[in-house]
Amino acid sequence: MASLWLAKLKLPVLLMVIQITFFALFGLFVDYDSEARPRQYGLSESNNNSAVFQDVHVMIFVGFGFLMMFLRRYGFSSMGLNLLLAAITIQWSTLVGGFLHHGGDKFTVSIVSMVTSDFAAATVLISFGALLGKTSPLQLLVMALIEVIVYAVNEYIGIVLLQVSDIGGSMFIHAFGAYFGLSVARVLYSPEVEKSTKEESVYHSDMFALVGTIFLWMFWPSFNSALAMEDAQHRAVLNTYFALVACCVVTFATSSLVNKNGKFDMVHIQNATLAGGVAIGTSADMIIMPYGALIIGSVAGFLSVIGYKYVTVSLAIYQ
Amino acid sequence: MASLWLAKLKLPVLLMVIQITFFALFGLFVDYDSEARPRQYGLSESNNNSAVFQDVHVMIFVGFGFLMMFLRRYGFSSMGLNLLLAAITIQWSTLVGGFLHHGGDKFTVSIVSMVTSDFAAATVLISFGALLGKTSPLQLLVMALIEVIVYAVNEYIGIVLLQVSDIGGSMFIHAFGAYFGLSVARVLYSPEVEKSTKEESVYHSDMFALVGTIFLWMFWPSFNSALAMEDAQHRAVLNTYFALVACCVVTFATSSLVNKNGKFDMVHIQNATLAGGVAIGTSADMIIMPYGALIIGSVAGFLSVIGYKYVTVSLAIYQ
Amino acid sequence: MASLWLAKLKLPVLLMVIQITFFALFGLFVDYDSEARPRQYGLSESNNNSAVFQDVHVMIFVGFGFLMMFLRRYGFSSMGLNLLLAAITIQWSTLVGGFLHHGGDKFTVSIVSMVTSDFAAATVLISFGALLGKTSPLQLLVMALIEVIVYAVNEYIGIVLLQVSDIGGSMFIHAFGAYFGLSVARVLYSPEVEKSTKEESVYHSDMFALVGTIFLWMFWPSFNSALAMEDAQHRAVLNTYFALVACCVVTFATSSLVNKNGKFDMVHIQNATLAGGVAIGTSADMIIMPYGALIIGSVAGFLSVIGYKYVTVSLAIYQ
Repeated sequence: MASLWLAKLKLPVLLMVIQITFFALFGLFVDYDSEARPRQYGLSESNNNSAVFQDVHVMIFVGFGFLMMFLRRYGFSSMGLNLLLAAITIQWSTLVGGFLHHGGDKFTVSIVSMVTSDFAAATVLISFGALLGKTSPLQLLVMALIEVIVYAVNEYIGIVLLQVSDIGGSMFIHAFGAYFGLSVARVLYSPEVEKSTKEESVYHSDMFALVGTIFLWMFWPSFNSALAMEDAQHRAVLNTYFALVACCVVTFATSSLVNKNGKFDMVHIQNATLAGGVAIGTSADMIIMPYGALIIGSVAGFLSVIGYKYVTVSLAIYQ
Repeated sequence: MASLWLAKLKLPVLLMVIQITFFALFGLFVDYDSEARPRQYGLSESNNNSAVFQDVHVMIFVGFGFLMMFLRRYGFSSMGLNLLLAAITIQWSTLVGGFLHHGGDKFTVSIVSMVTSDFAAATVLISFGALLGKTSPLQLLVMALIEVIVYAVNEYIGIVLLQVSDIGGSMFIHAFGAYFGLSVARVLYSPEVEKSTKEESVYHSDMFALVGTIFLWMFWPSFNSALAMEDAQHRAVLNTYFALVACCVVTFATSSLVNKNGKFDMVHIQNATLAGGVAIGTSADMIIMPYGALIIGSVAGFLSVIGYKYVTVSLAIYQ
Repeated sequence: MASLWLAKLKLPVLLMVIQITFFALFGLFVDYDSEARPRQYGLSESNNNSAVFQDVHVMIFVGFGFLMMFLRRYGFSSMGLNLLLAAITIQWSTLVGGFLHHGGDKFTVSIVSMVTSDFAAATVLISFGALLGKTSPLQLLVMALIEVIVYAVNEYIGIVLLQVSDIGGSMFIHAFGAYFGLSVARVLYSPEVEKSTKEESVYHSDMFALVGTIFLWMFWPSFNSALAMEDAQHRAVLNTYFALVACCVVTFATSSLVNKNGKFDMVHIQNATLAGGVAIGTSADMIIMPYGALIIGSVAGFLSVIGYKYVTVSLAIYQ
């Protein structure tokens, strides 16, 4: 009985300890950025970031929140867990990112740092998607705390030391989050366990997942352009917009082609329509020209449907 | 067997051919606008357009997407088709509009052209609404390709040649889209076919349609002001806002008046609350004064409910 | 028969009379603000407000609209009533606020006045939440008309005369709206009536309420910063963001702690996650430092769950 009572306390007590630690670390290290301090004028540029930040925020909480509802049994709680994981990740990544970039000195927060923390939340939520229905909230929490550190170090090495360009975070957010989640899944589960999980989808939850997809899809131009400046920001919006519409057309076409009745498969639509946003992410701010964006988006949509159709199936055979 | 196989290929192959044609035409004709090219400064004004563009984008994909779910049988797929039609229309109207306005020369894309392409998508989706549950995806696709051309020519004649003012596209988007859709419906169907269609609405899909209505309703100030400048943009936001709230009050009042139990009819709410946004569209940027906006919105709401109640019923009688 | 017919007419006729009165009062008193009049330049700052206004608008119509759906029987109609009440309140509070601040002279409307009117709508909708399922549309309408006057006078005394600071309206919007609604409930109902009401929640409507919560939660930084300027606006965004994420973590922790199985209670998540936004509202634009925002949000989340768990239950016992 006593041990059961202790088990039940583990998660809330850990959450409380984490939050109190955050108080202390924020108190010691975090200050407002100059644009959020008195006597600063002519800040119209950063004002715009506020609108872009809100767009990214919608992707994190509505986009991912709904997308996670594709498993029926977890529909409701997955949206709540999505909120909890993001809320912890946002605070933790503000701290970890600050420590890494300022070597233990005090550092500041701004609308740009809010966008960056939301990006870290996106990374954790992508990993969460790979683990949905297979892990307890406690395991997810531990994963999030570790993943944020690995993510920040990986991004620091890539962006700061190697000077890799990845404006929309295709590598450092999407690919990293997906592989991290898959690795955790591999460590935690044997194939037998995996088969017994409640991974079933129904009409209703499929519809919610589609809503999530559409919110992610719509606001992707803001996501890919949020950290770009001036003309590069305009290019990032334009390139992402065109990559996504082309990706969408090719996803529908390929989905119909590989279906034996020529029907569109909603699972393809939910996933592959977003591939264009990921694919264009790395180069969204570059001068790749509108037709280049169309081609990148199209190839991504095509490969995503083909990959989903044939690779997943063949993996299932070999399991 | 072979012909069935061919039939199934028709749609995806057509989609692929269209997308590849788009690659070529974009490669030959489309470049970035100056504000998306390097070494441009002081672009704070167009940054704002980026937020307005995202609002319009939400109307196209969430607003229309949900609104189309009012037919139960098509709930799910209508949201997907909405996405596909918009994705094709956006690319095609970028090209058609560019050809028309630049006589075959190269032309540029910018955030303004993205808004314009989204407007063309709105036009096609309004026509789609009139055909929902009566047409195949292939028919809708062909309709979209033709409609974009007619739309662009119509708009070119109206705005460029005749210098008609229609900032929110009441005539060139809403009225045009509706009549085009109804005309296509008339051409494609005999009354008998029409009766047998699956046009049934249920509680659940009605709720989704209401969500679509509310997303359209909320962001309409951005829609009507997206292409206006400076003080005209402010007026367009204010006038649309006031027209919509007044329209809303009168729609509820009229809906209750014409109902034999004094109840509100959700079908009226879903449709007539938006009439104010359409009605104010043409003159949204003009100095019509706040009370003028209230009156325009109110008359629109009243006529829309009355029209829906009595004209639709009488049409049904004569069929 | 005749009296029944008259009863049915009461609501729509009242709505019509109200709307026509609004025409007259707007015609006599309301003009555009200078930034919405011709020949005004360099208005990039107020352009940003347009994006913030749209965020607040989403909170009013989607956030509150969905949140009100927590009662199953009222799911559908509550979203409609939410729309109607907000549409009336927006117009009425434009007038009442204008009269109060300009002593009967003509006054102007601008994007700032639109935000202020949306805030008044939030107040009325919070009161509506306390009355849901217990009142007729007519009663709600009368309440809204009266509440707007009391709200405006209360705010005028507080902000203008006493110079109280309440940038996010914690006192003048949230607390006022809640207590006004509870007072009306107390006046209108005896305990027996209250017990017989249809206040039941089900899985499905709980999910919609969670969606409402998330829309309110996401856009709260825009809400609390909408009327702040320059660096204060940045601080309001940052402080609200941090208060909300910390509030979220502590809400989940406390909800698990007070649950006998250690589970999260969705009713807590739906309500207490928002407490951080309310708590930080009064001081959101002040230099309270990021760790201060975290602590304020956390305490609010903790007290909200504890209050809901123990105070509500004990109230139920004493009833």
